[in-house]
Amino acid sequence: MPDNATDTRTFSADLYFATQPKPAFLQDDTLMSDVRSFIAKHENKRVVLVTSGGTTVPLELNVYEISVRFLDNFSTRGATSAEYFLKQGYAVIFMHRQFSLQPFSRNYSHSTHPFLDFLEIEEDSKETDQQEPQITVKPSERTALLSVLRAYKAVQAEGTLLTLTFVSVDDYLFLLREVSQAMATLGPRAMFYLAAAVSDFFLPRQRLSEHKIQSGKGNLSIEMDQVPKILKPMVADWAVGGFTVSFKLETDQALIIPNARKALQRYGHQVVIGNDLHHRKYRVVLVSPRRFSLLDAHAKPDGDLSTEYEESWIEIDSSPHAPNKEIEEDIVMELVRRHDEWISRHESTS
Amino acid sequence: MPDNATDTRTFSADLYFATQPKPAFLQDDTLMSDVRSFIAKHENKRVVLVTSGGTTVPLELNVYEISVRFLDNFSTRGATSAEYFLKQGYAVIFMHRQFSLQPFSRNYSHSTHPFLDFLEIEEDSKETDQQEPQITVKPSERTALLSVLRAYKAVQAEGTLLTLTFVSVDDYLFLLREVSQAMATLGPRAMFYLAAAVSDFFLPRQRLSEHKIQSGKGNLSIEMDQVPKILKPMVADWAVGGFTVSFKLETDQALIIPNARKALQRYGHQVVIGNDLHHRKYRVVLVSPRRFSLLDAHAKPDGDLSTEYEESWIEIDSSPHAPNKEIEEDIVMELVRRHDEWISRHESTS
Repeated sequence: MPDNATDTRTFSADLYFATQPKPAFLQDDTLMSDVRSFIAKHENKRVVLVTSGGTTVPLELNVYEISVRFLDNFSTRGATSAEYFLKQGYAVIFMHRQFSLQPFSRNYSHSTHPFLDFLEIEEDSKETDQQEPQITVKPSERTALLSVLRAYKAVQAEGTLLTLTFVSVDDYLFLLREVSQAMATLGPRAMFYLAAAVSDFFLPRQRLSEHKIQSGKGNLSIEMDQVPKILKPMVADWAVGGFTVSFKLETDQALIIPNARKALQRYGHQVVIGNDLHHRKYRVVLVSPRRFSLLDAHAKPDGDLSTEYEESWIEIDSSPHAPNKEIEEDIVMELVRRHDEWISRHESTS
Repeated sequence: MPDNATDTRTFSADLYFATQPKPAFLQDDTLMSDVRSFIAKHENKRVVLVTSGGTTVPLELNVYEISVRFLDNFSTRGATSAEYFLKQGYAVIFMHRQFSLQPFSRNYSHSTHPFLDFLEIEEDSKETDQQEPQITVKPSERTALLSVLRAYKAVQAEGTLLTLTFVSVDDYLFLLREVSQAMATLGPRAMFYLAAAVSDFFLPRQRLSEHKIQSGKGNLSIEMDQVPKILKPMVADWAVGGFTVSFKLETDQALIIPNARKALQRYGHQVVIGNDLHHRKYRVVLVSPRRFSLLDAHAKPDGDLSTEYEESWIEIDSSPHAPNKEIEEDIVMELVRRHDEWISRHESTS
């Protein structure tokens, strides 16, 4: 597309939101009014927004979509972490890609651990007032299921989980902006745990009509723009005072820490969780400004970043016979501890 | 990418399979040996290959993938039809996109009908020899679940369902070729029900390295090739004598029948099921050669196609209070009837 080559531009967050249409599901206030009620109900609690799953990019209105994403798309990171935040007493807004895994039910994936496999029909249940046989759970699965089911029912009874879904990267960007703005009322009690794998590229709506795809008419050329970096306005404008955690997934281990530091310097947030594709279930590193305060976090323009930032590693046993432990439990415990400090510091100074 | 514009070509099926590497999971014989055992075990039955879900296209080795696909990607068509084929006594090879819906469990989607919602903990079960409370199914869900569970357990006991998964369009193409070649031993007793939504475009492996994606370095240009039309070699060479059904999803109703006829003329198979995006759950049309025989199906080169092909519509009640009925039940019944005729005709002439 040589003619379009000069036509491309980098979208800042401002330009993006000024030129791209708001998704239909946010055009009336129904959804955001539910979000605000949830936040108001839990205003004395700590509240975390957990994002999860990958985004897609529509190529042609209503017919095709494209998704440029990490293989980690169907990652359990977000869903698993949400469960541990709930266990720690947080109210959780779980913003996930439609059809991606969710807290609690993620333990019973239809592909790897189908629940139909552990239900049994009690064909010879002889109770006379009962026409149909009872369905029960296999003894070998009962303990694990009881634990999941009790946690699930407690969360439902307390109303501490709100689930929101997105499909496209546009859904994601607009929803993240609105939800983080609504959470600003929580001040330091808000945490943002951004585990979704967001596309790096998108097709601006204004070019969508050029991409009417004709099967059988030769090749397909696509020219996509970069998705704006919205962590910056999020930290600086939308969710002021909140505690923000982002993720960096790398295939090259050596890049994890330098890239995490660059992200902290650029966006001014609190923690980057770095991980590499192959060890992400067993080892992560939390990178943060050394004195752990927004006020002290400004690096000298040409300074040695290693004096400004610190790392702490979290690692669990990856051997085949290791106890059944999820690294997200330790990640969440450490973040909760840091979030507590963050809240005390900010509430004592305000 | 003006320099590459002259470099593109149309891949025939032969060129595709000659130049693209076989996916790793097919490089040894483990999987196909399971497929052949399954086919051998059921050689006196009718056997159907059902494909389901959408395909992805890797953009960069190990890191990104792209999926150009119908919104119908997470369609229940394949999974639902597979259940009805099993009910009709078929052995089913269910070849589906990883994480897409599967027969039986598709009734309990984690998003729309989570199974955790209908399990209850019998906290006051007083049996002394039982440490843990029993888990039971809510009475309101029991009848439906019993019916799903009985069908599921019967299929497991009889071993009539073999599930295969694919992710990329390359996985799909290679797997379809191998499975349909293996099914050729079944002659007319093989049915192919191709409900997967296959990408129209792919990136040849030879160009993948050009697409090393650098985030933060400007826009992304992608030039994709058309996926080869493999229905032709499938019908003519791989699965000779089988009964082949393909799908055409259109957004413009007026195109359904003309495009279905063109596909039958081009590929020489038995049935195209046409449907439009908005009514696909309530109305489909089966388009087939009029005399319903491969031998008679050659249209005159410039002839009026309407005399060569016939249509039959299947429609179910779409009103909100309609009985709980799935159109796939009627589609499968009609196909089974036609497949029976196909088998009698072919077995009497051979």
